[in-house]
Amino acid sequence: MTLPMQLLTPQWLLCLNHSTEVLENHAVLIHNDVIEAVGPRDELLNQFPQAMRVDLPGQVLMPGLINCHSHAAMNLLRGAADDLALHDWLQTRIWPLEGELADAEFVYDGTVLAAAEMLQGGITTFNDMYFYPDQVVQAALDVGSRVFAGITVIEFPTRYAAEAKQYIELGIAARDKFLNEKTVHWTVAPHAPYTVSDDTFSHMAMLAEELDLPMHCHLHETPSEVSDAVSRSGERPFDRFERLGLINERLMAIHGVHLNHQELQTMATKGATLVHCPASNLKLASGIAPVAAALKAGVNVVIGTDGAASNNKLDLWEEGRLASLLCKGASGDATAFPAGQLLMSMTCNAAKALGAEHLIGRITPGLQADLIAVAVGEAAHQLPNHNLISKLAYSGASRDVRHVWVAGVQVVQSQQLVGQRAQLVGEIMRKTQRVWQTRVEKVG
Amino acid sequence: MTLPMQLLTPQWLLCLNHSTEVLENHAVLIHNDVIEAVGPRDELLNQFPQAMRVDLPGQVLMPGLINCHSHAAMNLLRGAADDLALHDWLQTRIWPLEGELADAEFVYDGTVLAAAEMLQGGITTFNDMYFYPDQVVQAALDVGSRVFAGITVIEFPTRYAAEAKQYIELGIAARDKFLNEKTVHWTVAPHAPYTVSDDTFSHMAMLAEELDLPMHCHLHETPSEVSDAVSRSGERPFDRFERLGLINERLMAIHGVHLNHQELQTMATKGATLVHCPASNLKLASGIAPVAAALKAGVNVVIGTDGAASNNKLDLWEEGRLASLLCKGASGDATAFPAGQLLMSMTCNAAKALGAEHLIGRITPGLQADLIAVAVGEAAHQLPNHNLISKLAYSGASRDVRHVWVAGVQVVQSQQLVGQRAQLVGEIMRKTQRVWQTRVEKVG
Repeated sequence: MTLPMQLLTPQWLLCLNHSTEVLENHAVLIHNDVIEAVGPRDELLNQFPQAMRVDLPGQVLMPGLINCHSHAAMNLLRGAADDLALHDWLQTRIWPLEGELADAEFVYDGTVLAAAEMLQGGITTFNDMYFYPDQVVQAALDVGSRVFAGITVIEFPTRYAAEAKQYIELGIAARDKFLNEKTVHWTVAPHAPYTVSDDTFSHMAMLAEELDLPMHCHLHETPSEVSDAVSRSGERPFDRFERLGLINERLMAIHGVHLNHQELQTMATKGATLVHCPASNLKLASGIAPVAAALKAGVNVVIGTDGAASNNKLDLWEEGRLASLLCKGASGDATAFPAGQLLMSMTCNAAKALGAEHLIGRITPGLQADLIAVAVGEAAHQLPNHNLISKLAYSGASRDVRHVWVAGVQVVQSQQLVGQRAQLVGEIMRKTQRVWQTRVEKVG
Repeated sequence: MTLPMQLLTPQWLLCLNHSTEVLENHAVLIHNDVIEAVGPRDELLNQFPQAMRVDLPGQVLMPGLINCHSHAAMNLLRGAADDLALHDWLQTRIWPLEGELADAEFVYDGTVLAAAEMLQGGITTFNDMYFYPDQVVQAALDVGSRVFAGITVIEFPTRYAAEAKQYIELGIAARDKFLNEKTVHWTVAPHAPYTVSDDTFSHMAMLAEELDLPMHCHLHETPSEVSDAVSRSGERPFDRFERLGLINERLMAIHGVHLNHQELQTMATKGATLVHCPASNLKLASGIAPVAAALKAGVNVVIGTDGAASNNKLDLWEEGRLASLLCKGASGDATAFPAGQLLMSMTCNAAKALGAEHLIGRITPGLQADLIAVAVGEAAHQLPNHNLISKLAYSGASRDVRHVWVAGVQVVQSQQLVGQRAQLVGEIMRKTQRVWQTRVEKVG
C-alpha cells in the first residue's frame, strides 16, 4: 500500500534528537512509513507541492511516546485488585484470575483496549511482556500501535505453555509469523529471577544475541525478592545476572527498586537500562527506586506504566510526571530528573533501550513516522506557555493529544481512533462490559 | 433568580455521605441552589413531573471535588519556575515575579484561568490563599466556582498591603462586599509561621472565633522551616501554634510534611486538619508528608493542589491518586489510604475541614447542589468497571468529567463551560498569551 505524502506543519516542532531544541516554522514530510524530510516550512512546501498538507496550529509535533514496560492484556483486570499488599494482590487475586481467564481471547481483547488507551494518550510504542504474544501482536496490528512483544518465559505451567522450552518455541513461532510487519518487534522476556532458572536465562541470552533482541526482565522489584534470593542461594539477583553475563546493553531491568550504588554503577558501565515504573512500585508498596542516583551514575532511565492491574492507568504523561516528581521528593534534590531529560526518557532514550534508535524515538529523516501532535493552548489547563518543555513534562496530559501517526498511518485524528479500529475497539469495549466483567466477578 | 427544578438521573449515584455506597436507579432533585430530594428514580419522576429531567447514562453523579489548598492566581506563573531548589524557586523566581506582577488584574485573570481549569476537572470548590481576595472572589463568581477566600496576611509589604493591620482590613472589607453571595466563603489565612508574628496569629485566631471561620495556614512544609525556628526561638512552629491555641478544629495545616508522631496525635485529639499537597512537596523536594501515620492517628487528611507554579496542574484526580500511591509507597503499606477514604478526603471530609459539612461535600437533601457527573464507560481508558470506587480513585481523570453544577447552576455541560463564562475564559486565555506571557518573560 502506498500512502500519499503528508506534510505536517505544526506551530512548534520538538524533534527530541537528544536535544530539547524547539523549532518554529518548520515542517515534517512523511513518505509512506518514513520521515522523509525535516526542514523550514516554506522550503518543504515549495519542494513538495504534491504532498497532502496537515496544519497543526497551536500544536507541538513530537515523537510518539514509548511505554517501556506493559502487560497490556491486564487492562481487563484494571480495578480488580486494589488496596492490597503485594502478596494478597498476587496470590489471592491476580494469579487466580489469570489462571482462570488468561487465554488467547483474553490477551487479544485486553491488548486491544490497552493499545487504544495508549494510542489516544500519545503512546505509539509499547514494550510488552505477557502470555500469547501472537495475540498481543495481532491486537497491536489491528489497533495500529507499534509493539515490542516478548518471547516470554515464566517457569511454571500456565494455560499458555508448560515449560521453558515450550514458552520459547511458541514465542519464536509468533515472531516468525509476523516477520514482515514493520511495526512488530521482539524482545526475549524471561519473567524474573525468582521464576526463571540459570539455564533458561543463559539460553535466552544466547537467543537475544542470535536474533539481536533486547532482554526484558523484572529485577529487584521488592525487598523480599532480594532477601529471599540471598537466603536461598547467598547471591543477590543482580549478582546472579552479572555471573550469567546478563548485565549488558541488551538488558532492560524492570523496576530496579532495590539496586544499590555499586549495582547502578555497574549498569551504567555496561550500558544496561533501568525501566522505572513509579505508580506500580508505589501502589504495591514495593518501595521507591533510586532514580536520582541512577541518573547520576549515568544509567539510561526510561519509563513504564506496568500493567493496568498495578497502576491503574496506562498514561505516560502522568507516569513520567510522577517519575520526575518522585525523584525530586525522594532524593531531596528539586533539580533532579528535569523536564527535558524526562521527555527524552520517554522518546529517544527509550528507543535506545529497545535497540531501536535507528527506527523510533526522534524526528529525523529516515526514521519511522511515529508522531504525535499535542495541543498546548486550547484550554485553560494548558496555559500559560512560558516554557514548552516544562509545559509538556509537567502539565501535559493524555487529553491534550490531538493526532497520532504510527509508521506514517494516522491512527488518531482529533482525539478519535481512525477508521475500522474505532469499530473494533467499540466492539471489545461492549464485550468487556458484557462478558469480561462478569467472568472476573465469577472468579471472585 | 428562580431556576427550573432539575431531576438528575445518573446510572450510578455516589452520595459520599461518609459512606461509599453506590446506588443504582436513583435520582437527585435540584431546586434552585439546593439538593431538594434524593431517592428512587421512579418515585421522584412521579413526584416531580414538572422538573427538567437530565439523563446521565454511563455516568456517576457524585459531590463536586473540593481543593483544600490553592493560590489560584499563580496559574499565570505555571511553568515559569521549574526544576529549581526551593530557595531558587522562591527567591530568584516567584517573589520577584509576584513583586513585579501580582496586582489586582493579575489576581483576577489568573484566578479566572484556575477556576476554569478546576471546574472542567470537577473541582467545584477551592480554598484559596492569595493577595487581593476580592479579585479571587470576583473571578470565582464570574466563572461559577464556589470559593473559600482567605483574609490573607503575610507580614511584609507587598503591592497589596503594607502591614498586618491593612491586610486584615482589606480582607474584612472584601468579605463584607460579598456577604450575600451564597457561593462565597472565607477563612482567616495567616501565611506561615515564618512570616506572621505571635500577635497577629492571636488576633487572627480571635477573628476566626468571632466570624466562625477556619484558619488556613502553611505549617512545617520544609525541614529548614522547623530547624530555623528551633535555632531562632528554641520552639518548633507546631509547639508555638499549640502555645497560641491554634491547634484546634478550625486549623487547616497546609503541607505538614515534617510533623512528628506526637504532633499528629495532638492534631487528631484537637480535631485539626492536615491538608496534603503531594505534588508540590515532591516538586520542591520538601519531603514526603507522614500521611499513613496521620490517618492512623485519626487526623482528618484532605488534599490540595497548591498553586500551579508548584505543581503544575490543578487536577484533583491526579493529586488524590498521587496522595494515595505515595502514602502506600512511603509507608510500605499497600492497604493505606484506600480508594473510598481517598474519595471522602476530596469531598465530605474536605467539607468538614472547611466547617462546611452542612453545605457541601455530600449528596443529601438540604445541602448545596454542587455536583459532578463523571463518565466511566465511554472510552477504553475507563474500562472495565470492576469496582466503581476504585475506578474513580485510581483511574478517574479530569477528562472524564462531563457535567458540573455549582449551587444548582450547570456551569459545565459536555465538558464545555456554559454561557458567558466560556467567553470570559476565552478572553482571558487570549490575553494570557498576548500579555501575561510577555510580562513574565520581561521579569526574566
